[in-house]
Amino acid sequence: MIQAPPVILASGSPRRQELLATMGIIFSVILKEVDESFPDHLRREEVALYLAEKKSTAYKKEASEGNLVITADTIVCLDQQIIGKPGGFEEGFEMLQLLSGKRHEVITGVSLHTGNQTISFFDTTNVYFKSLTKQEITFYLNTCTPYDKAGSYGIQDWIGFIGVEKIEGSYQNVMGLPVQKLYAELIKLNFEWQP
Amino acid sequence: MIQAPPVILASGSPRRQELLATMGIIFSVILKEVDESFPDHLRREEVALYLAEKKSTAYKKEASEGNLVITADTIVCLDQQIIGKPGGFEEGFEMLQLLSGKRHEVITGVSLHTGNQTISFFDTTNVYFKSLTKQEITFYLNTCTPYDKAGSYGIQDWIGFIGVEKIEGSYQNVMGLPVQKLYAELIKLNFEWQP
Repeated sequence: MIQAPPVILASGSPRRQELLATMGIIFSVILKEVDESFPDHLRREEVALYLAEKKSTAYKKEASEGNLVITADTIVCLDQQIIGKPGGFEEGFEMLQLLSGKRHEVITGVSLHTGNQTISFFDTTNVYFKSLTKQEITFYLNTCTPYDKAGSYGIQDWIGFIGVEKIEGSYQNVMGLPVQKLYAELIKLNFEWQP
Repeated sequence: MIQAPPVILASGSPRRQELLATMGIIFSVILKEVDESFPDHLRREEVALYLAEKKSTAYKKEASEGNLVITADTIVCLDQQIIGKPGGFEEGFEMLQLLSGKRHEVITGVSLHTGNQTISFFDTTNVYFKSLTKQEITFYLNTCTPYDKAGSYGIQDWIGFIGVEKIEGSYQNVMGLPVQKLYAELIKLNFEWQP
Protein backbone atom coordinates (compact mmCIF):
# COMPACT_ATOMS: atom_id res chain seq x y z
CA MET A 1 0.00 0.00 0.00
CA ILE A 2 3.01 2.25 0.35
CA GLN A 3 4.84 2.37 -2.96
CA ALA A 4 8.34 1.70 -1.74
CA PRO A 5 11.38 -0.39 -2.52
CA PRO A 6 11.26 -3.86 -0.96
CA VAL A 7 11.25 -3.39 2.80
CA ILE A 8 13.41 -5.42 5.18
CA LEU A 9 12.65 -5.31 8.89
CA ALA A 10 15.82 -6.12 10.79
CA SER A 11 14.10 -7.16 14.02
CA GLY A 12 13.09 -10.46 15.53
CA SER A 13 10.49 -8.80 17.78
CA PRO A 14 7.04 -10.24 17.02
CA ARG A 15 5.57 -6.93 18.28
CA ARG A 16 7.49 -4.89 15.69
CA GLN A 17 6.51 -7.33 12.94
CA GLU A 18 2.84 -7.10 13.92
CA LEU A 19 2.95 -3.28 14.10
CA LEU A 20 4.58 -2.91 10.68
CA ALA A 21 2.01 -5.29 9.17
CA THR A 22 -0.90 -3.26 10.61
CA MET A 23 0.62 -0.17 8.94
CA GLY A 24 -0.05 -1.96 5.66
CA ILE A 25 3.59 -2.44 4.76
CA ILE A 26 4.74 -5.64 3.09
CA PHE A 27 8.17 -6.68 4.31
CA SER A 28 10.54 -9.52 4.92
CA VAL A 29 12.60 -10.13 8.06
CA ILE A 30 16.36 -10.62 7.97
CA LEU A 31 18.17 -11.09 11.27
CA LYS A 32 21.86 -10.55 12.03
CA GLU A 33 23.77 -10.62 15.28
CA VAL A 34 24.70 -7.08 16.31
CA ASP A 35 26.59 -6.20 19.49
CA GLU A 36 24.32 -3.90 21.53
CA SER A 37 26.97 -2.10 23.56
CA PHE A 38 27.23 1.70 23.39
CA PRO A 39 29.64 4.41 24.58
CA ASP A 40 29.04 5.59 28.14
CA HIS A 41 28.99 9.31 27.35
CA LEU A 42 25.83 9.18 25.19
CA ARG A 43 22.61 10.77 26.39
CA ARG A 44 19.50 8.61 26.46
CA GLU A 45 17.98 9.51 23.08
CA GLU A 46 21.44 9.22 21.59
CA VAL A 47 21.69 5.64 22.87
CA ALA A 48 18.48 4.60 21.08
CA LEU A 49 19.60 6.31 17.88
CA TYR A 50 23.15 4.96 18.17
CA LEU A 51 21.91 1.38 18.54
CA ALA A 52 19.38 1.70 15.68
CA GLU A 53 22.14 3.05 13.44
CA LYS A 54 24.66 0.47 14.61
CA LYS A 55 22.23 -2.29 13.67
CA SER A 56 21.69 -0.53 10.35
CA THR A 57 25.35 -0.67 9.35
CA ALA A 58 25.14 -4.48 9.38
CA TYR A 59 22.74 -4.26 6.42
CA LYS A 60 24.85 -2.23 3.97
CA LYS A 61 24.70 -4.96 1.37
CA GLU A 62 20.89 -5.25 1.46
CA ALA A 63 20.47 -1.46 1.30
CA SER A 64 22.86 -1.15 -1.65
CA GLU A 65 20.84 -3.78 -3.49
CA GLY A 66 17.77 -1.53 -3.56
CA ASN A 67 16.07 -2.48 -0.31
CA LEU A 68 14.83 -0.20 2.44
CA VAL A 69 16.14 -1.57 5.74
CA ILE A 70 14.33 -0.65 8.97
CA THR A 71 16.18 -1.09 12.27
CA ALA A 72 15.01 -0.03 15.72
CA ASP A 73 16.04 -0.06 19.34
CA THR A 74 13.85 0.56 22.38
CA ILE A 75 15.20 1.65 25.74
CA VAL A 76 13.49 2.24 29.09
CA CYS A 77 14.73 5.16 31.19
CA LEU A 78 14.09 6.11 34.79
CA ASP A 79 15.40 9.65 35.17
CA GLN A 80 18.93 9.36 33.74
CA GLN A 81 19.23 5.60 34.31
CA ILE A 82 18.83 3.24 31.36
CA ILE A 83 17.08 0.01 32.31
CA GLY A 84 17.98 -2.89 30.05
CA LYS A 85 16.65 -6.40 29.66
CA PRO A 86 16.53 -8.51 32.84
CA GLY A 87 18.69 -11.59 33.21
CA GLY A 88 15.86 -13.50 34.85
CA PHE A 89 13.30 -13.40 37.66
CA GLU A 90 15.41 -11.64 40.30
CA GLU A 91 16.50 -8.83 38.03
CA GLY A 92 13.03 -8.54 36.48
CA PHE A 93 11.54 -8.20 39.97
CA GLU A 94 14.02 -5.44 40.87
CA MET A 95 13.27 -3.55 37.64
CA LEU A 96 9.50 -3.62 38.15
CA GLN A 97 9.93 -2.49 41.76
CA LEU A 98 12.00 0.43 40.44
CA LEU A 99 9.27 1.40 37.95
CA SER A 100 6.42 0.89 40.47
CA GLY A 101 4.57 4.08 41.43
CA LYS A 102 6.66 6.25 39.12
CA ARG A 103 6.84 7.82 35.69
CA HIS A 104 9.43 6.48 33.28
CA GLU A 105 10.25 7.13 29.65
CA VAL A 106 10.38 4.74 26.74
CA ILE A 107 12.49 5.84 23.79
CA THR A 108 12.57 4.03 20.47
CA GLY A 109 15.21 4.96 17.91
CA VAL A 110 14.56 4.03 14.28
CA SER A 111 16.90 4.01 11.31
CA LEU A 112 15.79 3.88 7.66
CA HIS A 113 18.59 2.78 5.37
CA THR A 114 18.46 2.87 1.57
CA GLY A 115 21.35 2.64 -0.83
CA ASN A 116 22.03 6.36 -0.83
CA GLN A 117 20.82 7.59 2.56
CA THR A 118 20.20 6.80 6.20
CA ILE A 119 17.51 8.65 8.10
CA SER A 120 17.22 8.25 11.86
CA PHE A 121 14.67 9.53 14.34
CA PHE A 122 13.30 8.70 17.77
CA ASP A 123 10.10 9.05 19.74
CA THR A 124 9.58 9.31 23.51
CA THR A 125 6.56 8.15 25.51
CA ASN A 126 5.99 8.80 29.21
CA VAL A 127 4.55 5.81 31.08
CA TYR A 128 3.03 6.09 34.58
CA PHE A 129 2.86 2.93 36.67
CA LYS A 130 0.66 2.63 39.76
CA SER A 131 2.27 1.14 42.88
CA LEU A 132 2.64 -2.52 42.03
CA THR A 133 2.30 -5.12 44.78
CA LYS A 134 4.89 -7.88 45.16
CA GLN A 135 2.12 -10.34 44.41
CA GLU A 136 1.27 -8.61 41.12
CA ILE A 137 4.93 -8.46 40.04
CA THR A 138 5.54 -12.11 40.95
CA PHE A 139 2.42 -13.30 39.15
CA TYR A 140 3.34 -11.33 36.01
CA LEU A 141 6.94 -12.51 35.87
CA ASN A 142 5.94 -16.14 36.38
CA THR A 143 3.21 -16.15 33.75
CA CYS A 144 4.68 -13.87 31.07
CA THR A 145 8.48 -14.33 31.54
CA PRO A 146 9.18 -10.92 29.92
CA TYR A 147 12.96 -11.36 30.04
CA ASP A 148 13.47 -10.37 26.40
CA LYS A 149 11.92 -6.95 27.09
CA ALA A 150 13.63 -3.73 28.19
CA GLY A 151 12.33 -2.78 31.64
CA SER A 152 10.97 -6.30 32.10
CA TYR A 153 7.44 -5.56 30.90
CA GLY A 154 5.27 -5.36 27.80
CA ILE A 155 2.66 -2.60 27.87
CA GLN A 156 0.31 -4.90 25.97
CA ASP A 157 0.67 -7.59 28.66
CA TRP A 158 -1.40 -8.12 31.79
CA ILE A 159 0.86 -5.86 33.87
CA GLY A 160 0.42 -3.03 31.37
CA PHE A 161 -3.35 -3.39 31.61
CA ILE A 162 -3.64 -3.45 35.39
CA GLY A 163 -0.60 -1.31 36.16
CA VAL A 164 -0.27 1.57 33.67
CA GLU A 165 -2.40 4.49 34.84
CA LYS A 166 -1.70 6.64 31.80
CA ILE A 167 0.74 7.35 29.03
CA GLU A 168 1.74 10.53 27.19
CA GLY A 169 2.80 9.91 23.60
CA SER A 170 2.57 6.94 21.27
CA TYR A 171 1.39 3.58 22.65
CA GLN A 172 3.04 1.61 19.84
CA ASN A 173 6.32 3.40 20.57
CA VAL A 174 6.31 1.62 23.94
CA MET A 175 5.68 -1.68 22.14
CA GLY A 176 8.78 -1.04 20.03
CA LEU A 177 7.90 1.04 16.95
CA PRO A 178 6.70 4.66 16.69
CA VAL A 179 4.31 3.85 13.85
CA GLN A 180 2.93 7.34 13.23
CA LYS A 181 6.38 8.93 13.00
CA LEU A 182 7.58 6.06 10.82
CA TYR A 183 4.67 6.60 8.43
CA ALA A 184 5.40 10.35 8.29
CA GLU A 185 9.08 9.68 7.52
CA LEU A 186 8.20 7.20 4.76
CA ILE A 187 5.89 9.78 3.15
CA LYS A 188 8.70 12.39 3.38
CA LEU A 189 10.98 9.93 1.56
CA ASN A 190 8.47 10.09 -1.30
CA PHE A 191 7.13 6.62 -0.76
CA GLU A 192 3.73 7.23 -2.20
CA TRP A 193 0.63 6.24 -0.36
CA GLN A 194 -1.50 4.36 -2.86
CA PRO A 195 -4.74 2.76 -1.78
CA MET B 1 -7.60 -14.88 38.71
CA ILE B 2 -9.70 -12.28 40.44
CA GLN B 3 -11.80 -13.96 43.13
CA ALA B 4 -15.17 -12.50 42.23
CA PRO B 5 -18.75 -13.50 41.71
CA PRO B 6 -19.49 -14.74 38.19
CA VAL B 7 -18.87 -11.80 35.85
CA ILE B 8 -21.23 -10.85 33.02
CA LEU B 9 -20.00 -8.44 30.37
CA ALA B 10 -23.01 -6.71 28.85
CA SER B 11 -21.31 -5.67 25.63
CA GLY B 12 -21.15 -7.08 22.13
CA SER B 13 -17.92 -5.21 21.38
CA PRO B 14 -15.17 -7.69 20.47
CA ARG B 15 -12.65 -5.09 21.69
CA ARG B 16 -14.18 -4.97 25.18
CA GLN B 17 -14.32 -8.77 25.33
CA GLU B 18 -10.66 -9.03 24.33
CA LEU B 19 -9.59 -6.37 26.87
CA LEU B 20 -11.45 -8.02 29.75
CA ALA B 21 -9.91 -11.38 28.84
CA THR B 22 -6.37 -9.91 28.86
CA MET B 23 -7.09 -8.60 32.38
CA GLY B 24 -7.40 -12.26 33.35
CA ILE B 25 -11.10 -12.11 34.15
CA ILE B 26 -13.33 -15.03 33.25
CA PHE B 27 -16.74 -13.83 32.10
CA SER B 28 -19.77 -14.58 30.00
CA VAL B 29 -21.50 -12.19 27.61
CA ILE B 30 -25.22 -11.46 27.81
CA LEU B 31 -26.64 -8.93 25.36
CA LYS B 32 -29.89 -6.97 25.66
CA GLU B 33 -31.31 -4.18 23.54
CA VAL B 34 -31.02 -0.86 25.36
CA ASP B 35 -32.15 2.47 23.95
CA GLU B 36 -29.05 4.72 23.82
CA SER B 37 -30.80 8.10 23.96
CA PHE B 38 -29.93 10.56 26.75
CA PRO B 39 -31.25 13.88 28.07
CA ASP B 40 -29.89 16.96 26.29
CA HIS B 41 -28.84 18.82 29.43
CA LEU B 42 -26.15 16.31 30.47
CA ARG B 43 -22.50 17.22 30.33
CA ARG B 44 -20.19 14.93 28.39
CA GLU B 45 -18.89 12.72 31.23
CA GLU B 46 -22.44 12.53 32.54
CA VAL B 47 -23.58 11.12 29.17
CA ALA B 48 -21.06 8.25 29.31
CA LEU B 49 -22.02 7.49 32.92
CA TYR B 50 -25.74 7.85 32.20
CA LEU B 51 -25.59 5.40 29.32
CA ALA B 52 -23.45 2.87 31.25
CA GLU B 53 -25.95 3.03 34.13
CA LYS B 54 -28.96 2.90 31.80
CA LYS B 55 -27.59 -0.29 30.26
CA SER B 56 -26.96 -1.60 33.78
CA THR B 57 -30.61 -1.29 34.83
CA ALA B 58 -31.54 -3.84 32.15
CA TYR B 59 -29.54 -6.46 34.10
CA LYS B 60 -31.26 -6.20 37.51
CA LYS B 61 -32.24 -9.84 37.45
CA GLU B 62 -28.72 -11.10 36.72
CA ALA B 63 -27.20 -8.83 39.40
CA SER B 64 -29.74 -9.96 42.01
CA GLU B 65 -28.84 -13.57 41.22
CA GLY B 66 -25.29 -13.05 42.46
CA ASN B 67 -23.54 -11.94 39.28
CA LEU B 68 -21.34 -8.90 38.77
CA VAL B 69 -22.58 -7.13 35.64
CA ILE B 70 -20.19 -4.81 33.77
CA THR B 71 -21.68 -2.28 31.35
CA ALA B 72 -19.84 0.46 29.49
CA ASP B 73 -20.37 3.27 27.02
CA THR B 74 -17.73 5.12 25.02
CA ILE B 75 -18.27 8.58 23.55
CA VAL B 76 -16.07 10.79 21.38
CA CYS B 77 -16.10 14.53 22.06
CA LEU B 78 -14.77 17.44 20.07
CA ASP B 79 -14.91 20.43 22.43
CA GLN B 80 -18.50 20.32 23.69
CA GLN B 81 -19.83 18.32 20.72
CA ILE B 82 -20.52 14.59 21.13
CA ILE B 83 -19.72 12.62 17.99
CA GLY B 84 -21.72 9.41 17.70
CA LYS B 85 -21.55 6.45 15.37
CA PRO B 86 -21.66 7.25 11.64
CA GLY B 87 -24.59 6.14 9.50
CA GLY B 88 -22.26 5.16 6.66
CA PHE B 89 -19.46 6.41 4.41
CA GLU B 90 -20.62 10.04 4.01
CA GLU B 91 -21.09 10.63 7.72
CA GLY B 92 -17.91 8.71 8.58
CA PHE B 93 -15.96 10.91 6.16
CA GLU B 94 -17.37 14.07 7.74
CA MET B 95 -16.50 12.85 11.25
CA LEU B 96 -12.89 12.04 10.38
CA GLN B 97 -12.52 15.41 8.65
CA LEU B 98 -13.78 17.02 11.86
CA LEU B 99 -11.21 15.13 13.98
CA SER B 100 -8.35 15.69 11.49
CA GLY B 101 -5.51 17.90 12.78
CA LYS B 102 -7.15 18.33 16.20
CA ARG B 103 -7.27 17.05 19.74
CA HIS B 104 -10.42 15.27 20.84
CA GLU B 105 -11.47 13.42 23.97
CA VAL B 106 -12.66 9.87 24.39
CA ILE B 107 -14.70 9.18 27.52
CA THR B 108 -15.73 5.70 28.63
CA GLY B 109 -18.28 5.32 31.41
CA VAL B 110 -18.38 2.00 33.26
CA SER B 111 -20.96 0.62 35.65
CA LEU B 112 -20.40 -2.33 38.00
CA HIS B 113 -23.67 -3.80 39.23
CA THR B 114 -23.99 -6.41 41.97
CA GLY B 115 -27.09 -7.39 43.89
CA ASN B 116 -26.63 -4.71 46.53
CA GLN B 117 -24.70 -1.91 44.84
CA THR B 118 -23.90 -0.11 41.63
CA ILE B 119 -20.55 1.64 41.22
CA SER B 120 -19.94 3.89 38.24
CA PHE B 121 -16.84 5.69 37.05
CA PHE B 122 -15.37 7.11 33.87
CA ASP B 123 -11.99 7.75 32.31
CA THR B 124 -10.96 10.38 29.77
CA THR B 125 -8.19 10.10 27.16
CA ASN B 126 -7.00 12.93 24.92
CA VAL B 127 -6.28 11.85 21.33
CA TYR B 128 -4.33 14.01 18.86
CA PHE B 129 -4.84 13.33 15.15
CA LYS B 130 -2.46 14.63 12.49
CA SER B 131 -4.03 16.29 9.44
CA LEU B 132 -5.59 13.40 7.54
CA THR B 133 -5.70 13.51 3.74
CA LYS B 134 -8.92 12.73 1.86
CA GLN B 135 -7.12 9.76 0.35
CA GLU B 136 -6.22 8.37 3.78
CA ILE B 137 -9.77 8.81 5.11
CA THR B 138 -11.33 7.22 2.02
CA PHE B 139 -8.96 4.27 2.07
CA TYR B 140 -9.63 3.66 5.76
CA LEU B 141 -13.41 3.85 5.52
CA ASN B 142 -13.47 1.53 2.50
CA THR B 143 -11.21 -1.10 4.02
CA CYS B 144 -12.26 -1.03 7.70
CA THR B 145 -15.94 0.16 7.52
CA PRO B 146 -15.79 1.44 11.13
CA TYR B 147 -19.49 2.38 11.18
CA ASP B 148 -20.12 0.66 14.52
CA LYS B 149 -17.56 2.90 16.22
CA ALA B 150 -18.07 6.29 17.89
CA GLY B 151 -16.15 8.92 15.94
CA SER B 152 -15.84 6.52 13.01
CA TYR B 153 -12.44 5.14 13.92
CA GLY B 154 -10.71 2.47 15.98
CA ILE B 155 -7.41 3.55 17.54
CA GLN B 156 -6.09 0.01 17.00
CA ASP B 157 -6.90 0.23 13.26
CA TRP B 158 -4.70 1.42 10.40
CA ILE B 159 -5.90 5.02 10.78
CA GLY B 160 -4.96 5.01 14.46
CA PHE B 161 -1.47 3.83 13.59
CA ILE B 162 -0.75 6.33 10.81
CA GLY B 163 -2.89 9.17 12.14
CA VAL B 164 -2.65 9.43 15.93
CA GLU B 165 0.38 11.52 16.89
CA LYS B 166 -0.04 11.03 20.62
CA ILE B 167 -2.48 10.29 23.40
CA GLU B 168 -2.71 11.40 27.02
CA GLY B 169 -4.36 8.83 29.26
CA SER B 170 -5.29 5.20 28.83
CA TYR B 171 -5.00 3.59 25.37
CA GLN B 172 -7.50 0.84 26.21
CA ASN B 173 -10.00 3.48 27.34
CA VAL B 174 -10.09 4.67 23.71
CA MET B 175 -10.69 1.07 22.61
CA GLY B 176 -13.69 0.94 24.94
CA LEU B 177 -12.65 -0.09 28.45
CA PRO B 178 -10.45 1.75 31.02
CA VAL B 179 -8.79 -1.47 32.16
CA GLN B 180 -6.50 -0.02 34.85
CA LYS B 181 -9.33 1.89 36.55
CA LEU B 182 -11.59 -1.15 36.24
CA TYR B 183 -8.97 -3.31 37.97
CA ALA B 184 -8.57 -0.73 40.76
CA GLU B 185 -12.35 -0.63 41.30
CA LEU B 186 -12.59 -4.41 41.42
CA ILE B 187 -9.86 -4.52 44.06
CA LYS B 188 -11.70 -1.82 46.05
CA LEU B 189 -14.81 -4.01 45.92
CA ASN B 190 -12.73 -6.63 47.74
CA PHE B 191 -12.45 -8.95 44.80
CA GLU B 192 -9.21 -10.55 45.81
CA TRP B 193 -6.35 -10.87 43.44
CA GLN B 194 -5.20 -14.46 43.66
CA PRO B 195 -2.49 -15.78 41.37
